[in-house]
Amino acid sequence: MEVFNRFIAPKGFKFGAAYAGIKVSGKDIGLIFSEQPAKSAAFYTTNVMAAAPVQVSKEHQTATMPQAIIVNSGNANAATGKKGLINAYKMAQVTGKELGIDPKSVLVCSTGLIGEQLPMKKIEDGIVKAVKGLNLMNGSLVAQSIMTTDKVTKSVSVQFELDGKLITLSGVAKGSGMIAPHMKLHQATMLAFICTDLRVSRKALYEIMTDVNERTFNSITVDGDTSTNDSVIMMANSLAENKKLHSGDKKLSIVAGAIEKVFSSLARQIVKDGEGSSKLLEITVKGANDYKDAKQVAKTIANSNLVKTAFYGKDANWGRILAAAGRSGVEFDPSKVKLSFDGLELVKGGLGVKVDRRSLSPIMRKYNIKVELDLCQGKSQASYLTTDLTEEYVKLNAEYST
Amino acid sequence: MEVFNRFIAPKGFKFGAAYAGIKVSGKDIGLIFSEQPAKSAAFYTTNVMAAAPVQVSKEHQTATMPQAIIVNSGNANAATGKKGLINAYKMAQVTGKELGIDPKSVLVCSTGLIGEQLPMKKIEDGIVKAVKGLNLMNGSLVAQSIMTTDKVTKSVSVQFELDGKLITLSGVAKGSGMIAPHMKLHQATMLAFICTDLRVSRKALYEIMTDVNERTFNSITVDGDTSTNDSVIMMANSLAENKKLHSGDKKLSIVAGAIEKVFSSLARQIVKDGEGSSKLLEITVKGANDYKDAKQVAKTIANSNLVKTAFYGKDANWGRILAAAGRSGVEFDPSKVKLSFDGLELVKGGLGVKVDRRSLSPIMRKYNIKVELDLCQGKSQASYLTTDLTEEYVKLNAEYST
Repeated sequence: MEVFNRFIAPKGFKFGAAYAGIKVSGKDIGLIFSEQPAKSAAFYTTNVMAAAPVQVSKEHQTATMPQAIIVNSGNANAATGKKGLINAYKMAQVTGKELGIDPKSVLVCSTGLIGEQLPMKKIEDGIVKAVKGLNLMNGSLVAQSIMTTDKVTKSVSVQFELDGKLITLSGVAKGSGMIAPHMKLHQATMLAFICTDLRVSRKALYEIMTDVNERTFNSITVDGDTSTNDSVIMMANSLAENKKLHSGDKKLSIVAGAIEKVFSSLARQIVKDGEGSSKLLEITVKGANDYKDAKQVAKTIANSNLVKTAFYGKDANWGRILAAAGRSGVEFDPSKVKLSFDGLELVKGGLGVKVDRRSLSPIMRKYNIKVELDLCQGKSQASYLTTDLTEEYVKLNAEYST
Repeated sequence: MEVFNRFIAPKGFKFGAAYAGIKVSGKDIGLIFSEQPAKSAAFYTTNVMAAAPVQVSKEHQTATMPQAIIVNSGNANAATGKKGLINAYKMAQVTGKELGIDPKSVLVCSTGLIGEQLPMKKIEDGIVKAVKGLNLMNGSLVAQSIMTTDKVTKSVSVQFELDGKLITLSGVAKGSGMIAPHMKLHQATMLAFICTDLRVSRKALYEIMTDVNERTFNSITVDGDTSTNDSVIMMANSLAENKKLHSGDKKLSIVAGAIEKVFSSLARQIVKDGEGSSKLLEITVKGANDYKDAKQVAKTIANSNLVKTAFYGKDANWGRILAAAGRSGVEFDPSKVKLSFDGLELVKGGLGVKVDRRSLSPIMRKYNIKVELDLCQGKSQASYLTTDLTEEYVKLNAEYST
């Protein structure tokens, strides 16, 4: 299995992007098109305020074999009521018409401003342009077109062999970028689109994705705020012509490995681009009674402002980590816990260990720090990726918009 | 009922404070003493990592009619294992011996450094000094002695008449202050000690406090991190000689009103002193199906970094508030919600309302802003007090300690 830090088009997929004038500059319409209807699986935000496009995508994606994803940046089409919903359907309709396919096979995503109606004239023109420009090589332009507060584009590809066929699995994502100065009512969103030429049943795809999604995209945080537009969508169009994989097939473990590589790479790229961040922190909680407990403790630590500011200050303030674990709602015996940073033990049996400053300082200065908390009571573990909390984060998110 | 912004000694209470050298400067030992054993009620942190003194106070307070609270600042005696527990008992023992009372009637509190053992020699000397200095007027010194990262002392008194007797209810608190430069492993803690000469049954006291505590101390946040040492302790020594109040007595509503005044004043003083804060935000969620739902939504908004940074930036970014409400786990109909800032309507029927900038700007510049979200589906409401999130907060909490 080979991993590429760029976007390779799987068989039968084409990509388009255009500037429609929703954002001040840069591409703001993206299009992923599969020559033939695809098996799909998707996960959407659990936010009650789910944006209009999320509702439309959910409906289309579960009812059909989707063939296209149309996405705009610069406006989230969230908190926009009935008109917003009509506009989201309209985006699917225009895209379907231009591509000559059923509008119901078009999924719709938006990211950007919240609480404002889409500029539909601009968007319709943009869709027409994006369809005209469709080709095999534009995957990286789609990654560009979905950027809002992101500093860098995010994409990855994995290739592997199955039944003598080359399978390509490629993804683009956006998320956790900075607030663009002078733009108002911004809302950072996580979007990830993954396309593959793999032949696989929808059931098998969901089974793998549920598990992998939980351990990758659902195990990252920048600020603990869940967006109204978060969506992870996978399309598998079968054009690699491998023997169709069904639920229970042993070969699925290879596919699961490939999907995990793509998801975890995109998730990591998102956290690395986390707003104003100066560090990438990997919080692993071991020795829990079950995965749910381990994840709950890891998540509480990962979202603690006190923990995040301590790492920003290069301060090995382990008391804050233990205190966060202690308020997570998970029961454990404080007199057993162990804690280490990059393998250097700081706490043992719940008590601080005398640590040589010459060993600790270089670790605290690193960009990427592995924090491992061992609850020493069970066999389960979970990891969370997070950033530190910096003055830059506050500055970016406090930018005047009114 | 009269409220005083200073500490008035209820009948039969004496106070002491001393400098023991645990902190770099300032009083660091405080003592509250009741001439006779008191009915008591208390609430402690739910953190699994609860500090040693919390464990000792819990044991003593439920087993006895307590007569004294001994407290130190500068060291939290948390994550200190068996030795920490022995030291907490020792503090009760020394205090009891000096006062000539049963050590089991002494409650113990600590706040400050986490993960280090108490300097017991200094603490014992400090206790002896504090007992020697006991008098009626030192209540405000106790408020000083519990400061760690606090900028100001926090105290309040309420007086009212019952059965022709004057009842005094007075409290001191600490919490949410700044990280003191060059001090290491700090952990901000909320402590509140309330004493009264009221004659009341323990059962009635608990009933009132459970409700009031939920709506005051348990409805504030600065950074969402629950400390290992949080404690709210009430002592009622009966010396006002009113007719004893039992559970169900109608006059309890007067007492409940007085307790609520004291608790809400101290809670508000804590948030106003919130680390690095520049604003005091009152988040009220109305129209929920029940109090629990209302509080969950209010809490999620109050803890959202995106909401807090927006207010710091004087940005009426209502999308962030709705998005936080939407991820709170509470179901509601997004197309019904209303939102206002200081009475100015920003959202109606889930959609943004055109707002005159001349009305909005002065509100956003205020120190104290009332945010009201109406879910428009039920009759319950709850409020949360919070601060904004500032660059100063990050700076203070990132201070080097290693």
